[in-house]
Amino acid sequence: MKERGVDALLIGATSDMSYVIGRRLPVTERFNAIVITQTGQPYLIVPHLQLPLVSSLSDEIAILPWKETVDPIRMVANLVERLDLRSIAVDGLMRSGFLLRLQACLGQSVSFSNGSDLTAGIRLFKDADEMSILSDAAKRFDEIWQEFWSNGRLLGVSERNVMEQIRNLLYDSGFETMDWCDVGSGPNGASPLHHHSERIIQAGDPVVIDFAGTINGYFMDTCRTPVAGAPDPEFLDIYAIVQGAHDAANAIAQPGVPAKDVDRAAREVIQKAGYGDKFIHRLGHGLGLDAHEHPYIISDNTSPLQPGMVYSNEPGIYITGKWGVRIEDIIVMTERGARSLNNTTRDIVIMN
Amino acid sequence: MKERGVDALLIGATSDMSYVIGRRLPVTERFNAIVITQTGQPYLIVPHLQLPLVSSLSDEIAILPWKETVDPIRMVANLVERLDLRSIAVDGLMRSGFLLRLQACLGQSVSFSNGSDLTAGIRLFKDADEMSILSDAAKRFDEIWQEFWSNGRLLGVSERNVMEQIRNLLYDSGFETMDWCDVGSGPNGASPLHHHSERIIQAGDPVVIDFAGTINGYFMDTCRTPVAGAPDPEFLDIYAIVQGAHDAANAIAQPGVPAKDVDRAAREVIQKAGYGDKFIHRLGHGLGLDAHEHPYIISDNTSPLQPGMVYSNEPGIYITGKWGVRIEDIIVMTERGARSLNNTTRDIVIMN
Repeated sequence: MKERGVDALLIGATSDMSYVIGRRLPVTERFNAIVITQTGQPYLIVPHLQLPLVSSLSDEIAILPWKETVDPIRMVANLVERLDLRSIAVDGLMRSGFLLRLQACLGQSVSFSNGSDLTAGIRLFKDADEMSILSDAAKRFDEIWQEFWSNGRLLGVSERNVMEQIRNLLYDSGFETMDWCDVGSGPNGASPLHHHSERIIQAGDPVVIDFAGTINGYFMDTCRTPVAGAPDPEFLDIYAIVQGAHDAANAIAQPGVPAKDVDRAAREVIQKAGYGDKFIHRLGHGLGLDAHEHPYIISDNTSPLQPGMVYSNEPGIYITGKWGVRIEDIIVMTERGARSLNNTTRDIVIMN
Repeated sequence: MKERGVDALLIGATSDMSYVIGRRLPVTERFNAIVITQTGQPYLIVPHLQLPLVSSLSDEIAILPWKETVDPIRMVANLVERLDLRSIAVDGLMRSGFLLRLQACLGQSVSFSNGSDLTAGIRLFKDADEMSILSDAAKRFDEIWQEFWSNGRLLGVSERNVMEQIRNLLYDSGFETMDWCDVGSGPNGASPLHHHSERIIQAGDPVVIDFAGTINGYFMDTCRTPVAGAPDPEFLDIYAIVQGAHDAANAIAQPGVPAKDVDRAAREVIQKAGYGDKFIHRLGHGLGLDAHEHPYIISDNTSPLQPGMVYSNEPGIYITGKWGVRIEDIIVMTERGARSLNNTTRDIVIMN
């Protein structure tokens, strides 16, 4: 904050708040905030009925509860005036409605800026506890995929049914939430963000399956593209290209290598094979308390990767009208290079 | 917009966008927006890889896709400048990080205000299609509760296990998401927002069970407080008070009655019984594409209820150290008064 010339950081009921107070508060229309100043006492503003959820924090943070007919934005504005804060960095995930009301309360005398980089810089580096949670989550994902490879069903069932199979495995494994399970069979797989539909999976269809869930508050997220029965030879070729791109990204990733170079390593494999225009998204994203967070593995991110960073490696090729292929694992950057947290097979899997 | 003196409405990847375009786009760090001006062409700004999700809308809205290394905020700023928009109302659910960047791009020449009321005024009134979705969802909730009353288990299992029972019923019923399932047994029930824990439910424990999920994109949300075995006589008294408060709120609710009067009708029953300070939250909230939306049934909402509005009626009494009671159903305001969409029993249920 000092370097940025910011007097205080205002955090809403977002992943940044979870990171700071170590628990997740409900995200609703009820205003929650943390105000952290450069040197003084931090404050936690909570609706009165959330007091039982945070009372154990009262030694570490001043808790300011508000009753339901009080305007909590006015409370924060009063605090800002009392502490004479002039420049406030705001959590970029906070609802803009709260920010607009605060701006209207405080007028031109207080300036606001996006403060997400202040917390992102800390959250970029996973500590030992976080790494242990992520490793455990990844291991459970391996088991889920293994169970799906052994006993799952593709041929003749709907994309929705595949989602349900995965959902059952995810919850049986102990995950707290399933945040998405995209199932793109045949031509639907050519849309990287296709959700799932009632389409019945046909013989020879590749099926892009991308799912994410949380355990202990942290995300895990992987993708595989198995095939229902005997695949098209063209698909086999393209699958091998995507696999090669995935491997190339891991091979180049070392501490100090810019994120963009990792994206490029994967992209070059696909470009050289003639499918550069079919890899229509960045290579990856960080993950942790959010499903997508820093570091982004994208062609304009010049920041070097460093030990403790965690990100997805997920190249894909999407052929409109035919199918798509994507292979995604979560990677941790170590002193000795990229290590995959996920270790179910990345080879092609043929299923019934 | 004309009445408010606003040139345009900027909507993010939120429930307002789902309402406007009839589909839910992924909510991520990738910027999505709709720009609606008073009279001109509306615009939909989407990341390039979401094109397949929205291409069928191209007759109705101008689609502006952005590739991953383009700054979409700059795109919107250019559009604002080209259309000479000076006053922009912003969807209050949009991420504040996007708003702050847009404010930084456009400077003082453009003013921003909270535009949530513009869409809330439309979304307040559920049309026939929405009502049909909500009625269907409510009927499924009745069936879920009925199944839980018949074959569910409380005594000797954990709160988490109860959540799992409900989750299975919810997904078996066809719900797309379970957004929460709070299970507060014994003393945990005295915290209205207690999530769930590993606590084992004991003989005589009341258990506050509040769950919500979506189907066809719309929320349903109810709460009941069954008891594991024979309840404490004091609990029976308090249960009857909460039941009376719930009934009183429905009895007074008519078109034209201010929302605050409905809150007061329930609150007075509880106050007269001597527990006014134990009913520590508003009576209810609207629901639809969001779990909590307008109208809020709260002591400072003077707006009259009108036919087509949908809201929760959920009085509660919370006795610290002992237990809580809450009974919640979703109510639709009709020409002839309040009608409950949920119809599983509101009487006390004793379970094993």
